[in-house]
Amino acid sequence: MSVAHAQVWQGGADFQLREVPFPELSDGEALVELTAATICGSDRHTVSGRRSGACPSILGHEGVGIVVDSRRPGLEPGMRVVFSVTSSCGRCGNCRRGLTAKCDTVRKAGHESFEDVWPLSGTYASHIHLLAGQAVEEVPEHVSDALASTAGCAAATVMAVLDSVGDLAGRHVLVNGVGMLGVIAVAAARARGAAHVIACDPNPVNRELVGDLADVTVAPGMEHTVDVALELSGASAGVEACLTALDIGGTAVLAGTVAPGPEVSIDPEWLVRGWRTVTGVHNFEPRHLTQAVEFLAAEGHTLPADKIFGGPVPLGQLPEQFTRPGAALRTVVELQPSALGAHRGAKAAEPV
Amino acid sequence: MSVAHAQVWQGGADFQLREVPFPELSDGEALVELTAATICGSDRHTVSGRRSGACPSILGHEGVGIVVDSRRPGLEPGMRVVFSVTSSCGRCGNCRRGLTAKCDTVRKAGHESFEDVWPLSGTYASHIHLLAGQAVEEVPEHVSDALASTAGCAAATVMAVLDSVGDLAGRHVLVNGVGMLGVIAVAAARARGAAHVIACDPNPVNRELVGDLADVTVAPGMEHTVDVALELSGASAGVEACLTALDIGGTAVLAGTVAPGPEVSIDPEWLVRGWRTVTGVHNFEPRHLTQAVEFLAAEGHTLPADKIFGGPVPLGQLPEQFTRPGAALRTVVELQPSALGAHRGAKAAEPV
Repeated sequence: MSVAHAQVWQGGADFQLREVPFPELSDGEALVELTAATICGSDRHTVSGRRSGACPSILGHEGVGIVVDSRRPGLEPGMRVVFSVTSSCGRCGNCRRGLTAKCDTVRKAGHESFEDVWPLSGTYASHIHLLAGQAVEEVPEHVSDALASTAGCAAATVMAVLDSVGDLAGRHVLVNGVGMLGVIAVAAARARGAAHVIACDPNPVNRELVGDLADVTVAPGMEHTVDVALELSGASAGVEACLTALDIGGTAVLAGTVAPGPEVSIDPEWLVRGWRTVTGVHNFEPRHLTQAVEFLAAEGHTLPADKIFGGPVPLGQLPEQFTRPGAALRTVVELQPSALGAHRGAKAAEPV
Repeated sequence: MSVAHAQVWQGGADFQLREVPFPELSDGEALVELTAATICGSDRHTVSGRRSGACPSILGHEGVGIVVDSRRPGLEPGMRVVFSVTSSCGRCGNCRRGLTAKCDTVRKAGHESFEDVWPLSGTYASHIHLLAGQAVEEVPEHVSDALASTAGCAAATVMAVLDSVGDLAGRHVLVNGVGMLGVIAVAAARARGAAHVIACDPNPVNRELVGDLADVTVAPGMEHTVDVALELSGASAGVEACLTALDIGGTAVLAGTVAPGPEVSIDPEWLVRGWRTVTGVHNFEPRHLTQAVEFLAAEGHTLPADKIFGGPVPLGQLPEQFTRPGAALRTVVELQPSALGAHRGAKAAEPV
C-alpha cells in the first residue's frame, strides 16, 4: 500500500480524515509509520486561533514510529525513531553558526501547508515524511511510545534550556510553569544533581504532578532566591518572577514566551553587579534531541506517566480532543492500524 | 627601611602624602614595591563624588611592582607582579560557586579605609600590601609598566566579559564605549578572530584610538546587527544600542553599568524566539587576571600605548591629576624612588 491516512486541519476545530499518497523520497529523506503522537499545547493554540498556522495542514510535531522507507544512510527500515520539529538547510548563516533551529529556510513538522511541497509533515497521521534537514534519533525499546513521542518537542526543548545554564550540580533551581516541559525540567534538574528544585504553577493539579520530584511546589507569589530560573509558562508574571528570583551569578532561561506580550523592565546595574544572565531558548538543536532520548531512556521512569498522559485515542477521535480537551498534559494519539481502520504493511504491524 | 609612602585621600580632591609603616605579613600575604600605577576612571568618580568610597583611604587599584617580602608559597622577592582588585575568603557560598569577586566578605584594593585593618590597600603608594585572598600573577619583562598596570582591572575585566560570550572566531562584534576597556576589548576581539569589529563612542578622540584595530568606528545612533555586543560605556543609551544590535543567537554583555540608572525594557518573545542572551559582568575571577597578562604579553603591542597613556607623573603630583585630568585614558603614576623623593632599599631600586 502507498497511502497514508491523516487528519487534515481545515481551520477552527474542523479536521478531515484523508488519504495522502506516499511521497517519493529524495536523498536524506525517510518515511516513518507512526505508532503514536502526542498533542502539544501549541497545536491547541493553533486550533483555538491564539496562534496562526498554515491551513489546511497536518498538525502534530511530537511523534514516534518505525522507519518503513529510507534514503538516509544509517536510517534503516524497522528502526524505531523520533525526529526534530525543524528541518534546516545546513548552509545558511544561522545553520553554520550552529543555530539550525533558526535556519533562514526552516520548515517545521506539523506547521506546513498541506498544499505545498511537504504535505505529510505532521504527526496526526499514519505516516510522516522526514526531510533531509530533520534530525532523527533511534529510541530504545523500553521507552514507551507516549514518552518517546515527547522527545521531538518538549523533552528536546528542555535539554536546550538546560544546555544554556551549564552544570546544575548543587544549584538551586526554580521551574516556573509545570506543563509538559516543566515536569521534564524538574526531573532533569533532579537527575543533573540540582540541590534544590522549586516548581511553581498556579494549578494545584499541575503542582501535584511533580510532588514527588520537586523539593517544593508552590503557587505564584512567593519569593525565592535561586541560581537558575527556568521560565516555561509564557506568562509575563512568570518572567518577572524568574528575574526577581535570581541570586548573584544566576541565570534565567526564558523559553515559554512564544507569543507577543508585555515587555519586562531590567535594571542594568542589577544585571552587571550581580553577574546575572537572562537568555532565551526556542526549539532546539540536533544534539538536544539526542540528549532528550538519552534522558527519557535513563530517567523517563521518574516521570509520572500515568498522570501526564491522557488517552490513548485513535486518530479518528483527534478532532474532539481539541474541542473537549482533557486535563492531561499530553493526550496520546494511538496510530495503530486498528485505530486507523486501514490495512497496513506487515513490517509496521510487528510489535515494537 | 620599613615605611611606605602613600597619597592618602582625604575626601574631595584633597590628598595627603604620608608615611605608612610596613604591615606584618600573615600567611599568604606579600608586600610589593610598586613601580607604576594607572588611574582608573572609577577613582575619578570617587574623587568627584559620583561614587562613594571609604575615606580616608589609599585609592588606586591598578598597579605593578616587585615583590619585596612574601609569605605566599611560589611568590618570591624579586618577582614582578600584578594583582586582582578583589580579595576573597574562598569559603563562602559565592566563592565556592566560583564567584570570588562576589565573596560575602570581599575586600577591594584601593577601596578600603586607611584606618581599618588594611591601610596599605591601594596603588597610589610606594608599596601595596597584598592579602591572601588576592590573585597575583607574574608579568613578563617585555610588558611595559603602564600596560601591565592595567591588567588588574581593565584588562582582566575585559577577559571576564569575553569569557561570557565564548568563541569569537568569525563573529561580528560591537564594542560600545571606547575607554580603556573598550580599546582592550577591540584588540582582544581582533586577536580572538572576530570577523568584524565595530567600535562605537561619541568622542572622536576615543574612536581614533582604535582606528587601526576596529573594522569600523562609529558615533552612536547608527544601527548594527552583530553576534556579540559589549557594553562598556555605562550609558543607558549604550545598553539600548547593544540590545537593539543583537542578531539571532546574539549575546550582549553589559559591564559598564556600575551606577544606578534607568531600567531598560526587554521583549521576552524577542529574547526567546531569537535565542538571545543578555548578561552582566562585574570585576573578574583569578583566571581572568591570568588571561589578561597572557593577552598583554602576546597582543599588548597592538594597543596604541602612545595615545592611551598620559604622564608619567610622580606620586607627589597625583592630586592635580584629579583636578586637571588629561585627555589620556590612563595617566601613569611612576613610583620610582626618585619620584617619591625617599630612600628605598637596594633590591627595589634595581632595574626591572
